[in-house]
Amino acid sequence: MIDPSLTSWVPVAADSDFPIQNLPYGVFSRNGGEPRIGVAIGDDVLDLHACASAALFDATVEATIVQSSTLNALAAAGSKTWSALRSRIVALLRADASELRDDPAKRLAVVVPSREVTMRVPVDIGDYVDFYSSLEHATNLGKIFRPGGDPLMPNWRWLPVGYHGRSSTIVVDGTPVVRPIGQRKPPDAAPPSVGPSRLLDIELEIGFITGPGNAMGTPIAIADAREHIFGLVLVNDWSARDIQAWEYQPLGPFLGKSFATSISPWIVTLEALEPFRVAGPAQEPPPLAYLRGDGAWNYDVALEVALETQAMRAGGEAPAVVSASNFRHMYWNMAQQLAHATINGTATRPGDLYASGTISGERPDSYGSFIELTWRATKPLSLPNGETRGFLEDGDRVTIRGFCERPGARRIGFGQVSGTILPARE
Amino acid sequence: MIDPSLTSWVPVAADSDFPIQNLPYGVFSRNGGEPRIGVAIGDDVLDLHACASAALFDATVEATIVQSSTLNALAAAGSKTWSALRSRIVALLRADASELRDDPAKRLAVVVPSREVTMRVPVDIGDYVDFYSSLEHATNLGKIFRPGGDPLMPNWRWLPVGYHGRSSTIVVDGTPVVRPIGQRKPPDAAPPSVGPSRLLDIELEIGFITGPGNAMGTPIAIADAREHIFGLVLVNDWSARDIQAWEYQPLGPFLGKSFATSISPWIVTLEALEPFRVAGPAQEPPPLAYLRGDGAWNYDVALEVALETQAMRAGGEAPAVVSASNFRHMYWNMAQQLAHATINGTATRPGDLYASGTISGERPDSYGSFIELTWRATKPLSLPNGETRGFLEDGDRVTIRGFCERPGARRIGFGQVSGTILPARE
Repeated sequence: MIDPSLTSWVPVAADSDFPIQNLPYGVFSRNGGEPRIGVAIGDDVLDLHACASAALFDATVEATIVQSSTLNALAAAGSKTWSALRSRIVALLRADASELRDDPAKRLAVVVPSREVTMRVPVDIGDYVDFYSSLEHATNLGKIFRPGGDPLMPNWRWLPVGYHGRSSTIVVDGTPVVRPIGQRKPPDAAPPSVGPSRLLDIELEIGFITGPGNAMGTPIAIADAREHIFGLVLVNDWSARDIQAWEYQPLGPFLGKSFATSISPWIVTLEALEPFRVAGPAQEPPPLAYLRGDGAWNYDVALEVALETQAMRAGGEAPAVVSASNFRHMYWNMAQQLAHATINGTATRPGDLYASGTISGERPDSYGSFIELTWRATKPLSLPNGETRGFLEDGDRVTIRGFCERPGARRIGFGQVSGTILPARE
Repeated sequence: MIDPSLTSWVPVAADSDFPIQNLPYGVFSRNGGEPRIGVAIGDDVLDLHACASAALFDATVEATIVQSSTLNALAAAGSKTWSALRSRIVALLRADASELRDDPAKRLAVVVPSREVTMRVPVDIGDYVDFYSSLEHATNLGKIFRPGGDPLMPNWRWLPVGYHGRSSTIVVDGTPVVRPIGQRKPPDAAPPSVGPSRLLDIELEIGFITGPGNAMGTPIAIADAREHIFGLVLVNDWSARDIQAWEYQPLGPFLGKSFATSISPWIVTLEALEPFRVAGPAQEPPPLAYLRGDGAWNYDVALEVALETQAMRAGGEAPAVVSASNFRHMYWNMAQQLAHATINGTATRPGDLYASGTISGERPDSYGSFIELTWRATKPLSLPNGETRGFLEDGDRVTIRGFCERPGARRIGFGQVSGTILPARE
């Protein structure tokens, strides 16, 4: 763990997401150039490709790993390499390190202002799995979709329910999302019709990017999960509730989800998050043996969802925060999710994405989706400018932010993942 | 279409799957060497990498496309390139073409006996989608799982139901399958227990491999589907029915399927299958506009499932054919599946796999899974040697074959996809 009092010679504002204690990895391009691996520090990016070219890494890490166009090779390299590289980056950036600080030419070659770069999806994602691990979210959806019955399915407290999502449409922060077209059939209508989704929603999630992975046929034991989690990103699992409701029986969500999933560009490592590790909620019934972990596996990450409508943007108004939640609420944690997903021998590859499922808290203003926040549009949100929202309208821009804060620790932030809804195509 | 009377100077037996009218693409390695693209002809493989090195393709096709370790670049190149390459291969292999036939050194460099090669998964598969498009299969499963109710969900006749499967565990013909471990809860037991699946099953399917693909946000119109289907493979979607039954609500199959999916190594093109194109079943209600296609989109592919138990193998007995079905039975066809999967703007990439879902016919001996063939083990299969089977036991080897036959046409075969069940790991 990096001393919370340590600072960098790169200027870092007190409220920055990216102090020297964070050092998340991302992939950027500059002036339309080739994608490169970088590390966020304050309002700058340390260009690891350039660092390797300048022989700043010695034998710490192979050049092929940091001079790649994605982070898959670094994810595959494993925790010893992750720690060695992190230590070396700290040694280059700490305030008392002169090697870069006092060499303007070298500094100019390896430190790039964030405003000059375009961020990319940081890994080639092989498989994308989405869980359903918030007790509050699963309970809310059960109440909304199956009123009168038990809101939780009988399996929910025994295993982290999940399904495979689509990897081809995972996009990075800032990518616009075209309103999807599909079949919808309101309960009172017959037959179904085809058209733009009228119930377009978000899901506030955090996902982990996998490390080395396991061979097919060999599960990852819960005690080894840490070696297989490279880091975390914010996830917005856009959802078309009307398309989903009509299609999902009996094989689960498909087109209601596959049109777009947005992630934040910076992968925050477990090492950076270590000061914010906390115990999760009590689990009852006690988990089966392969899901029984030792130690705290939840993380205290504050999350917020901000909505900016077209009218707000035109009027120069600030976005409205419509939900404030926390990753610590999760019932099933990441180690349990990974152990469960591989208990049958499924292979995990470096760079896979496993998302948490919607992170809802207990209070109505901490729900992680509009269908919960507005109880399926029966209680529309009132925005500061007088507008209301049940679900998303064209021009709406949603921004999710995540950050860890605690007295005595430096703020560790995730940056953001945002997207603006464009009208459906004709 | 290649004249059915045309022959090759490469010897091809009358009952071979791979006459000059077929020419399926695959990826092989020889003596542990690098993977190469090849084309099956009789009991031989035409090595396209070597053909390009020997300057046999001229400007027909870029060397980078055929000198790759996967077929993704050829899939991406589109139908004009597919046709041009196919024409050139016919020109090299036809009986009256002397260029290779009469040049022993060149022939030796580009024609490899099949027995000397190891086949690979032929494409890097980005996303894997599995449909549920056989009316007979969906009806059977509905009757088994929801007796008394309507066996079909209300959406089934309106859209091709599908879900995303796992791409990391797609393996090629011959790869053993380790019996998966997972949570199972028989209806009369509480709580669930963890252990090897007791209801291990197959699903007899055919899948299509996609071509160039579409940009995110732009659906593939049903009229354009042909340009986006590179070819077809046999698929065995191994299924652990007990794991699946406990986990699948409400988000669909996950660990009951993700442990393994096997495919045949040779990708048979739509051009090769053209003589076997047939009309599909009448669809009622009429499909919605985006699912309404012009022309026949089903294919007359005979399918059979053979089972060889450990005892049969030890006794030198022939495998028993336990099911004989046909791809022509499918209710929803491939063009409809692709149009549906992209109507919401989902991007398809070259080399994606879209599988049909279990292909069951009307007769009980044409069902494409053991759960149907044995009606959930209530009517076990009797094998010729006196053994019986409800579901698969350790040591069982399942082989799926597919072929097209018709008077006046050459047989077009898919080869096979097989797998042997290994005991669960301790």
